[in-house]
Amino acid sequence: MQIVIALFDRFTALDAVGPHQVLHHLPGADVIFASERERAVTDESGTLTLRADAAFADVPRPDILVVPGGPGQADQMTPGPLQDWLIAADKTSTWTTSVCTGALVLAGAGLLAGRAATTYWLALPELARLGAVPKRERFVFDGKYLTGAGVSAGIDMALALAGRVAGDDEAERIQLAIEYDPRPPYQSGSPATARAELVEKFTAASRFARTAG
Amino acid sequence: MQIVIALFDRFTALDAVGPHQVLHHLPGADVIFASERERAVTDESGTLTLRADAAFADVPRPDILVVPGGPGQADQMTPGPLQDWLIAADKTSTWTTSVCTGALVLAGAGLLAGRAATTYWLALPELARLGAVPKRERFVFDGKYLTGAGVSAGIDMALALAGRVAGDDEAERIQLAIEYDPRPPYQSGSPATARAELVEKFTAASRFARTAG
Repeated sequence: MQIVIALFDRFTALDAVGPHQVLHHLPGADVIFASERERAVTDESGTLTLRADAAFADVPRPDILVVPGGPGQADQMTPGPLQDWLIAADKTSTWTTSVCTGALVLAGAGLLAGRAATTYWLALPELARLGAVPKRERFVFDGKYLTGAGVSAGIDMALALAGRVAGDDEAERIQLAIEYDPRPPYQSGSPATARAELVEKFTAASRFARTAG
Repeated sequence: MQIVIALFDRFTALDAVGPHQVLHHLPGADVIFASERERAVTDESGTLTLRADAAFADVPRPDILVVPGGPGQADQMTPGPLQDWLIAADKTSTWTTSVCTGALVLAGAGLLAGRAATTYWLALPELARLGAVPKRERFVFDGKYLTGAGVSAGIDMALALAGRVAGDDEAERIQLAIEYDPRPPYQSGSPATARAELVEKFTAASRFARTAG
């Protein structure tokens, strides 16, 4: 079972590594990071560099494809290596998935038209503009399309996918393997639970400031 | 504020990337992945390679040091580049931290003698044998030592650290930035909540089989 995680400059590392950490535990999983060519790809912070071990051309027919988000998503919204690969790979994929603003890339490629989907909380209005039906959920299944909310949601999304692919027992085994028993020391992980003043300031400072809300 | 995350062969990627995703958002943070030399370092799965941008010798006095775990931890329990660096860097660090079996490396270096600490659930007996006082908690502070439980616990640990370093407001901002509002689709993330049969099978198959329980 080939699982390809797409990388692009200024991606958000946890968007990609959260699902990797879950999915590489699946029996028979062959997880591959890919980009337009084999290269080192640096994240949004400029301080984390992951190696893309394959070019998109090397992995034309993944069983599962995962598109992370991050500030670099804005450069992936028009035809180019990632979009071209996505559109072609989606024709034969079993699952087409995203984390965070990776959903905007899927939507930009025309893959989420009329479909229920989620994304980073600040990007939900943008997802609607791109033709999807935005849902404020941790992850959303619509047929073979599975989209996760922001950044850390890739872990929840991938566990749900593991359950669909390999059964509940296997997903539970993986959850135990990664001791995923979250205990956030604050309750500020969603605009619904964070202080209103923080949400307001954060929204105003974000790259979605003009489109959010 | 220099934050150094140590890398070694067959580390667990989320142990390192979870804290990175939180800590790089801290004001003034300069996060650096380091190993015995600048090199590409491959994780436990063999499918994820992170670049260590510095040698340990380049970063002798980090403000915060983070030691991840993973199967490769077993090769880091005796004097060598990582242990030597840890022991020296700990003398001037503000915070010395670990995720998962990274705590065993700290303990092996003699840094947790008599201290309350936690680690991956299967490794708690081993942590005790190494002289620490094991706690079954998500993360444990003891003075400047902060240890997280297994794998995904690095996110919780790093948010708690962010609060100590930069204040609750800043930690809450980061939690919102990474939309850390976990919703595990299963309740199997701890031996206390997973099915007993699964815990038993998992324990028997683990590298801690002889020492656990």
